[in-house]
Amino acid sequence: MKLATIRSVCCSVRVRASRPGSRFSGMSRGCLPVWTTNSRLTLRTASTVTSSGTSPTLTANFGKLFKEDEWSECSRSVGEVVQSTQEAIATLQRRSPDIQPLLVILQAGENGSMLEINKKVAGKIGLNVTQICLAKNCSEDEIIEELLKLNDDPKVHGVFLHLPPASLTSRVLNALKPEKDVDCISNLNIGRLVRGDMSKGFVPPMASAVLDLLGKHDASLKGKSVLLVGGQGPLRLALQCLIERSGMTVQTNHWNSNSLKTQVLQADAVFLLSAGNMDIPPSWARPETVIIHCESALEPDDDLIDMSSISGLAYLTAVYRAQNVTHGCSRWLQEQQYRPWNLRSCKLQPLNPVPTDIEISRAQTPKPVAQLAEEIGLLPEELEAYGRNKAKVQLSLLDRLHSQPDGKYVLVAGITPTPFGEGKTTVTVGLVQALSAHLKLNSFACLRQPSQGPTFGVKGGAAGGGYAQVIPMEEFNLHLTGDIHAITAANNLLAAAIDARMLHEATQSDKSLFNRLVPSVYGVRKFSPIQISRLRRLGIDKTDPASLTPEEVSSFVRLDFDPSQITWQRVVDTNDRFLRKITVGQASTEKGQIRETGFDIAVASEIMAILALADSLKDMKNRLARIVVGSSRSGEPVTAEDLGVSGALAVLMKDAIKPTLMQTLEGTPVFVHAGPFANIAHGSSSVLADKLALKLVGQDGYVVTEAGFGADIGMEKFFNIKCRASGLRPNVMVLVATVRALKMHGGGPNVSAGAPLPKEYIDENLSLVAGGCHSNLKKQIQNAHLFGVPVVVALNVFKTDTQAEIDLVCQLAKECGASDAVPCRHWSQGGRGSLELAMAVKEAAGRPTNFQFLYNTEMPILEKIRTIAQKVYGAEDIDLSPEASSKIDYYNQQGYGSLPICMAKTHLSLSHMPDKKGTPTGFVLPIRDVRASVGAGFIFPLVGMMSTMPGLPTRPCFYDIDLDPETEEIIGLF
Amino acid sequence: MKLATIRSVCCSVRVRASRPGSRFSGMSRGCLPVWTTNSRLTLRTASTVTSSGTSPTLTANFGKLFKEDEWSECSRSVGEVVQSTQEAIATLQRRSPDIQPLLVILQAGENGSMLEINKKVAGKIGLNVTQICLAKNCSEDEIIEELLKLNDDPKVHGVFLHLPPASLTSRVLNALKPEKDVDCISNLNIGRLVRGDMSKGFVPPMASAVLDLLGKHDASLKGKSVLLVGGQGPLRLALQCLIERSGMTVQTNHWNSNSLKTQVLQADAVFLLSAGNMDIPPSWARPETVIIHCESALEPDDDLIDMSSISGLAYLTAVYRAQNVTHGCSRWLQEQQYRPWNLRSCKLQPLNPVPTDIEISRAQTPKPVAQLAEEIGLLPEELEAYGRNKAKVQLSLLDRLHSQPDGKYVLVAGITPTPFGEGKTTVTVGLVQALSAHLKLNSFACLRQPSQGPTFGVKGGAAGGGYAQVIPMEEFNLHLTGDIHAITAANNLLAAAIDARMLHEATQSDKSLFNRLVPSVYGVRKFSPIQISRLRRLGIDKTDPASLTPEEVSSFVRLDFDPSQITWQRVVDTNDRFLRKITVGQASTEKGQIRETGFDIAVASEIMAILALADSLKDMKNRLARIVVGSSRSGEPVTAEDLGVSGALAVLMKDAIKPTLMQTLEGTPVFVHAGPFANIAHGSSSVLADKLALKLVGQDGYVVTEAGFGADIGMEKFFNIKCRASGLRPNVMVLVATVRALKMHGGGPNVSAGAPLPKEYIDENLSLVAGGCHSNLKKQIQNAHLFGVPVVVALNVFKTDTQAEIDLVCQLAKECGASDAVPCRHWSQGGRGSLELAMAVKEAAGRPTNFQFLYNTEMPILEKIRTIAQKVYGAEDIDLSPEASSKIDYYNQQGYGSLPICMAKTHLSLSHMPDKKGTPTGFVLPIRDVRASVGAGFIFPLVGMMSTMPGLPTRPCFYDIDLDPETEEIIGLF
Repeated sequence: MKLATIRSVCCSVRVRASRPGSRFSGMSRGCLPVWTTNSRLTLRTASTVTSSGTSPTLTANFGKLFKEDEWSECSRSVGEVVQSTQEAIATLQRRSPDIQPLLVILQAGENGSMLEINKKVAGKIGLNVTQICLAKNCSEDEIIEELLKLNDDPKVHGVFLHLPPASLTSRVLNALKPEKDVDCISNLNIGRLVRGDMSKGFVPPMASAVLDLLGKHDASLKGKSVLLVGGQGPLRLALQCLIERSGMTVQTNHWNSNSLKTQVLQADAVFLLSAGNMDIPPSWARPETVIIHCESALEPDDDLIDMSSISGLAYLTAVYRAQNVTHGCSRWLQEQQYRPWNLRSCKLQPLNPVPTDIEISRAQTPKPVAQLAEEIGLLPEELEAYGRNKAKVQLSLLDRLHSQPDGKYVLVAGITPTPFGEGKTTVTVGLVQALSAHLKLNSFACLRQPSQGPTFGVKGGAAGGGYAQVIPMEEFNLHLTGDIHAITAANNLLAAAIDARMLHEATQSDKSLFNRLVPSVYGVRKFSPIQISRLRRLGIDKTDPASLTPEEVSSFVRLDFDPSQITWQRVVDTNDRFLRKITVGQASTEKGQIRETGFDIAVASEIMAILALADSLKDMKNRLARIVVGSSRSGEPVTAEDLGVSGALAVLMKDAIKPTLMQTLEGTPVFVHAGPFANIAHGSSSVLADKLALKLVGQDGYVVTEAGFGADIGMEKFFNIKCRASGLRPNVMVLVATVRALKMHGGGPNVSAGAPLPKEYIDENLSLVAGGCHSNLKKQIQNAHLFGVPVVVALNVFKTDTQAEIDLVCQLAKECGASDAVPCRHWSQGGRGSLELAMAVKEAAGRPTNFQFLYNTEMPILEKIRTIAQKVYGAEDIDLSPEASSKIDYYNQQGYGSLPICMAKTHLSLSHMPDKKGTPTGFVLPIRDVRASVGAGFIFPLVGMMSTMPGLPTRPCFYDIDLDPETEEIIGLF
Repeated sequence: MKLATIRSVCCSVRVRASRPGSRFSGMSRGCLPVWTTNSRLTLRTASTVTSSGTSPTLTANFGKLFKEDEWSECSRSVGEVVQSTQEAIATLQRRSPDIQPLLVILQAGENGSMLEINKKVAGKIGLNVTQICLAKNCSEDEIIEELLKLNDDPKVHGVFLHLPPASLTSRVLNALKPEKDVDCISNLNIGRLVRGDMSKGFVPPMASAVLDLLGKHDASLKGKSVLLVGGQGPLRLALQCLIERSGMTVQTNHWNSNSLKTQVLQADAVFLLSAGNMDIPPSWARPETVIIHCESALEPDDDLIDMSSISGLAYLTAVYRAQNVTHGCSRWLQEQQYRPWNLRSCKLQPLNPVPTDIEISRAQTPKPVAQLAEEIGLLPEELEAYGRNKAKVQLSLLDRLHSQPDGKYVLVAGITPTPFGEGKTTVTVGLVQALSAHLKLNSFACLRQPSQGPTFGVKGGAAGGGYAQVIPMEEFNLHLTGDIHAITAANNLLAAAIDARMLHEATQSDKSLFNRLVPSVYGVRKFSPIQISRLRRLGIDKTDPASLTPEEVSSFVRLDFDPSQITWQRVVDTNDRFLRKITVGQASTEKGQIRETGFDIAVASEIMAILALADSLKDMKNRLARIVVGSSRSGEPVTAEDLGVSGALAVLMKDAIKPTLMQTLEGTPVFVHAGPFANIAHGSSSVLADKLALKLVGQDGYVVTEAGFGADIGMEKFFNIKCRASGLRPNVMVLVATVRALKMHGGGPNVSAGAPLPKEYIDENLSLVAGGCHSNLKKQIQNAHLFGVPVVVALNVFKTDTQAEIDLVCQLAKECGASDAVPCRHWSQGGRGSLELAMAVKEAAGRPTNFQFLYNTEMPILEKIRTIAQKVYGAEDIDLSPEASSKIDYYNQQGYGSLPICMAKTHLSLSHMPDKKGTPTGFVLPIRDVRASVGAGFIFPLVGMMSTMPGLPTRPCFYDIDLDPETEEIIGLF
C-alpha cells in the first residue's frame, strides 16, 4: 500500500466528457453531470475546455470558473451541499447557540492552493477554520503531539492533515481520533467504511464528491454500471464500496488490460484512477458515458500551484469535507445529549445455599468501569478511573445534561430495626438490579461510603449482601477513591490550624501577629482575599494594612478562642477508643497550651455532612468556610474562614466532591458517595450523586437512594434536610420490613447481637407479625404520608419466613395505607427476586405526588423539634434541659435559628428509649443538649448519648484478615 | 453491507479446473494447483471429480479425500502450513515453555462440520481449542459478555465466532479484541488489512488459503492476472488487496456483464464469488486457467451437513486460522518482552524570566498516562489509572521482565546543603529530561512522595522546579494515589490495636480473654493461623485450644505490655504540633487506662520505611509482621504479629506497594513512591520503583534516583541500607553542588531562611568557592569513593553565578577526584540545560564499577556506628550515652545486632553541629540514644534532637490557597 494513494483523498479531481463538444453546455449555469431522464449519464459542461495535453480528449477544467468572487456562480452541487451544510449548522446552533463547527488544517510549511480552497469553502459555509503550521521538516512526534492536543480539544470537530507524504506514517494516520478523521484515513474509519458501519465513520470527501456528480438529481443510480480503471488502495476501495452500496455495479480493470475497451463501451461511467499520462481514447466510450478523471497530480506539497489549474471537483471535495466536519460536530453534540442506555447486564446464576458475600462477589467479573460508563452515556472525559473497577465522575455532567428531565427519585427507608439491621442496602441494590437488568429500565443506586474503621473491628461490609451487592466488595469497603482520607486531611488541617493559632496568639503581641499575618513581600504589605473577608465580617472596610487602628489590628489578629468552647474535634478512620478523650499540647514546644479534646471517627466529621449536602463545588466551599469551630471569649462564633483555611479545605476536597461509580453484581451502575452519621448528621448519601444519577437515568429512569436508620430518623432527615438542600422531590418511598422486626414490634422477646434468636422468630407466629404491622409498620407508613409520599412496603424475605407470614404482611401493609406491599428475594436470587418490587415501584412512581415538608424552617427551633417529636415519633411533648434551652437562645442570637433540625436519637425505637418497640406513646422526649453544624447547615438536638468513636473488641476481625502475597487476594475480609 | 458476506470468511471453498480431465492428476498425492514453469496457472487435481449439478463443469471436491485418519495424505499446502505452524509453536515454546496457543470457538448451538474441521486441524497442529457453547437463541449481551471475558483472558490467543448470521451484529463483531480477531472481522482489522498495516491485523484465513493455492511453489505471482467475479464486501476487498499486494493485477466484474467472457479468457485465475447457481461456461476459459469457486453454501448454522461435502479448502482455511492464532500468540509473547521505547517527548519552550513553578506546570499538557505507559512498554493490564495523569503499576511487571537486564543505576546526592536545599530533585528531573527527551536514551526518574502536611505550612512543593518538574505538580503534592493515607490507616490501626489490647487485658481474666480470642464458632474452637504463629514463638507446639495449660493460656492471651515501653506512635499527615505529646484514654469508657504518647507526621511512620525497602508483597508483609511496637513487662519485644494485625496491615497496604507513574514536563516517565524521613529513616524512594524502572528502561537505559539530605547521610544510607536490601548496585553518583553552598562551606557568612542573602553570595567570590570545593565537596566525593562509585559533579547554576565561578567549580571538582563536573541549567532550560550532565553520566556509567559496602552487618553495632562516624563524617570517635549503650545491649540480646545502621543526624553539617560547615574535624559524635525499626530493618542511633512532627507558622501558606469553583483550578499553591 502506498501512502500516495491515501493522500489522493485530498487531491484534485477533474471531470470531463468523453467526447468534446457533443453535449457540453450550461457550464456557466451549473456545469454538473446529471442523469438524463432515460437514466443514462450525461454531462453538461462548460464551453471552456482545455486540452489534457497527452490525450486527444478535452478536459473541462471547472476550476477556471471558480473565480474568487463568483461563489454564487459555482456548480449546483457545490451550491446545494453548501446550502444543506449551512442549514445543518443553523440547526445545530438553534439547539446549542454556542456551538461552532471547527475544521483544523494541520499543515507543514506554507499555504498551498488546496488550503486556500478549503478555507474559502469553509468561509462560504460558515465553518470556522484554524490553521496550524508546523515546520516543513517537522518530526513525527511533533505532528502526533499536535494531533493529541486536537483530539482532546472539544472545540475541534475535524482535522485535515495537509502534510508531506513522508510524514503520513501509519502512526500519524492513526493518532487522530476517528471522530475527527473527516477524511477517513485511519484504519478504524476505513474498516467502518468497508463494513458499511457508517453510524460512526466518514465517507472520504472526494468519494462523496464523485458520487454526488454521478447521482445528482432525479435519476436513480440503481443498476448503473461504473468502471474503475487503474488505482488501488483505500480510495479505490472506498469508491467501490460506495458505488455498490448505491445500487450500481462496479467493474475494475487496470490500464493495460485487453478487455478495457469492451468495458468502457458498456460502462455508464468510467472513473480513471492513477492515470498519470494514460487516458481512454474518446472513441471507446459511448457519447453519454461520463468519464471522471480522479488524479493525484495536485500533491499537497505542491504549494505554489496555480489556482487556475484546480478543478471544480476539488471545490466539491472541500465542500464535502466541510460537510463531514459538520456531521462530526453534530455527532459530538448528539453524544453530549442524553441517550437511552444500552446497558449490558451481567448474568447471575444464584446458587443454593447462598455462598458467602465475598465468594459471590469474587465469582462475578465486573465490567471495566470505562465500559459501564460508556453504556450509561458518560463521556470518556467525564470519567476519572481509579483502577479498573471504580471511577470518579465529573460534575460537569450536570451542565451537559442540564436540560435533560430528571428520572424518578426513590427513597429506601426501613421500619424501626432490630440490632441486626433489616437490609435496606440489599433492598436498594436488589431493586436496581431488577429495574435495570430485568425490566431494562435505566436505574441507579446511590449508596453511602462506609467507614473503613469498623471493617477491622466487627465483621460486616456495607456493600449489600448475598446476590444483591456492589462489587468488588473489598474495594467498596477499603480506601475506595480516597474521599474519607480527604475528609480526614481537611478536618485535621482545620484542627491543627485552631491549636496553632491559639499558641501563636498566646505567645505574640498584636503587632508581631499582624506583621506575620500580613507580611511585607518585596516591600509590599497587603491582605489576602480571605483576610479581606474577615475584615468585612469585623465591620472594617479598609484594604490598606497600614490604615488599621491598633484596635482594629487587635480584633483582626486575635480570634481569641475560648479553649473550653472549641467544638471542633480531630478525626481518624480507625476504631480507636483511646482517642475519645485526650489532652493535647503537652510537649514543651507548645508552651503549656494544653487542653482536652478528642478524636471522632472520620465519617462523623462535619465535613462529611457538608460533602453529602453540597450541590456544587462553590456550595461546598461556602459551607466549608461557614464551619463554626468554637467561639471567642466574647461568645462570637469563629469560623474556618476566620482561620484563613477554608480555601485549603476546598482544595483538599476537590476530588472528593466527585461521586464514585461502581456496579452491582448484575452490572448496573451505582454511585458511592459520602456517608455521614445518621444520628449527629443526616445519614444519607450525597445530593450530587443523586443529581448526577437523576440526569443519567433520564426521564423514564429511576434513582434509588437510601436513608440511614429507621424511617422516623432517616426518612425524616432525608426529606426535611437533604431534599430541602437539593430541591429534589421524591416520587416513592420503599419501606423495608422483615418478619423478624415485625415480630419484635408485635411483642416478641428481646433480640440482641451475639445471642441466639428466640424461637418466636424462627417458627411461624402470625399474631406477632400482625402486631408489628399494626404498630411500627403502620406508623412508619403514616410518617411517609405526612410528606405526601406514596409507600411501597418491601418485605425482605428470610428463609425462616412462612408463606402465611409473608402474605399477612403484604395484606396488612396495604390495609395500613401502603400503595403496595411485596416480598423480595434479592438476597438469594438477585434482581430476579426483586422483580415484583420493581414493578410495584414503577407503578407507584407513576402516580402524581404531593410532597411537602413537615415544618417551615422559619418556625422557632423549639417548635421544629416539637413538631418532629410529636408528629413523627409520637411523643406527647419535648423536655429541654437548661443547657439545651440556652444553646437554642445562643443559636437564635447568632442567626442560626432558621436551620433545619437533625435529631440525634436512637434508631432502635420510635422513642428515645431503645427498648420501647412497636409504637410507643405517652412519652416526653428529653432534649439533653443542642448543637449546630453550621457549615453542613443544621441544628442537632441530642436525645441521649451517641458514641462518635467506636472501639475494637477483644478479638477484632483483623485476626482473620490476611493477604495472599502470591495471588494478591484478600483473605478473611467479611 | 450484508453480514453474510462477512461470514463467508469462514465458509467452504471449492477449487476446480475449468475443463475436466485435461490436466487433472495427482489429487491423491497432494491435489494442489501450482504455477507451472512457464508461469501459467495449472491445476493438478484428483481423478475423483463430481458434477457441480447446475453447470456442465466438474468440481473436484477435495473434501472427499480428507478422511479422518488420512492427514498425511492431505494436500501439500495443508501439510506445509501445518508443519510451519507446528514449528512456530515449537519456537514459541522453546522461548516460553509454558505457552500454549489457544483458539476459542464461540458457538451457538451444537457442533457443525466446520467446527469439527477446525478442531481436527488444531489437534493435528498442536493448538489447544476450547469450545464455548451458548444457547442457540442467546442474546447479543450474552455473546458480548463472553467475548469480554475472552478479551481479558491472557491464555486465549484467537477467537472463532461460529454464530448465526443474525447474531453477528456490528456490536458483536467489534466487541472482540482486534488482537484476538483471527478471522479479521472487526472494523479495525479490516481497515488495517485495506491499508496494508499488517503488523497488527490478520489476513482472513480463507483469503490466505486461496492465495496459497495460487502462489504455491516455485513460480512468481508477479504480473499474473486475476479476475474476481461477483461478490462484494470485506472478503472480496480483502482478496483484491492481497492479490494486488502480491504483485498481481485484479479485475472485478459482476455475473451478468457482457465483458465477462473476454475477461475470463484473459485471466490467469478466476475467483467466483457469491455464485449461487451461476457458473462460468468451461469454454470461456483457457485450459490452464485456474477457477476457484469461493461459495458460502456451507453456512455455519448448517450444523448437520455431511462431512463428505466439505472441500479441501475448508481444511486449508482452518489451517490458516490456526496459523493466525499462532501469530496472535507470538505477538502477545512479543509484547510481553521488553521493547525499546518509542517515547514521544513533549516540546518545551522555556521563557525568560522563568515563570513560577505552577505556571510552568499548567502551561504544559501532560500526555495521558495510559499513553505514556504504552510508550515505555507497559501492558494495559499492568496499569491502574488514577485519573488521567497518574497510574499505579503492578508488580507483576517484575515477573514478566525478569530475564531483561537492568539499566544503569544513577544516584543523585548533594553536598552538605544550605537551609534552602541545593536542588537534587530538579537535577534528577532535569537529567532524565536530557537523557530521554534529548539524547533519546530510555530513562526513568524515581522520586519520593512528599508529605502533604507541609504543603499547607510553608511554601514549596517537592515536584522539582522551573523547567525540571514532575507534572501536574498539584497532583504530585496532594493525595497522589493515596499511599500516605494507606500508611496512616495501617499505622493507626496498629496503634488502636495496642491500646485496645491493653484495655482488654487489664479488664478481663485469662479465661475470658481466651474465650474471646479463640471463640467457639458453631461449637468449634480453633486458633487462627496468626495465633498459631504466636503459639510457635511462645514455644507452644499445640493446635487444639482445649489442650493448653493455664500457664500456656496466660502467656498466649497476655501480651502484658509495659505501658512505658510502647514505642509505636500514631500518625497524621498534617502539621499538627499539638499532637507531639498527648495523653490518651481519658474517657470513662477506657477505665483509667491513660498513658502519654504522641503523633508523628505520617511519613515518619516505620510503615513508610517498610514500603520503601520491601522488594515484594511478601517481603512487605513479613516486615509488617516483624514491627516491634513495644515490649512486655518482662522485656520481650511485642510485634504486630503478636497483636494479630499484620495481615490487616498488609491488606491496607496492598495498593500502596505499587509505584505511581507520572511524567516530567518533557513527557518522560517518573515513578513516585514512598518518602521515608531522611533522619529517623533512610530517606530514599522505594526499592520496588527502582527495580521496575530498571527493567523498563532496559540494558541501555538509566534510572536516576535521589537520596535525601547531603551525601554523608543520604548516600551513605542509600548504599548501606537500600542497596543492601535491594541487591541493586549503583553505577554512578551525581553530586549536586551550588556556588551558594560552596561559598558557605568556604567560609561565607551564615545563611538562613527568611533573611536576605549576604552579598558574598550574590557577587563573584572565587576564594570562597575554592574553599568550599576543597572542603565539603572534596570530602563528599571521597565519601562516594569509599563505596567504589564514580562521581559526576552537577553544578546547579543560579543566575547570580559568574562564569569564572562555574569554571572554577568544574575544574576543582575534577581535581578532587570527580570523573567529571559540569554546570546544569535545567531550571531555566529544561532537559536541554542538562545535556552536558547527561553525557557525563553516560560516560561515567559506562565504566566498570567496584561497589562495596562500608561495613559488614555482622560487625558489632557500636563498630558500625563508629565506622560511619569516622569514615564518612570525619569524627575522631563516638561517645555513647548510658541509655544508648544499654539499648545496644538490649538489641544485641534480642537478635537485632546484625541490622544495618540508620544515623539520625543533622543534614546541615558533616558533624552533629549544624553550624560547622566545610569539613569539620576533631569532633566526637555524641550518640544520645539508639532505637530500632525492626520491621523496616535498621537500628537508628540518635545524634541530637529531630522533630517528627512539624508545626504551622503564624501565617501558614494556606492563607493563599484557594480553589476557583468555576474552573476547578487551584490558586496559590506553591
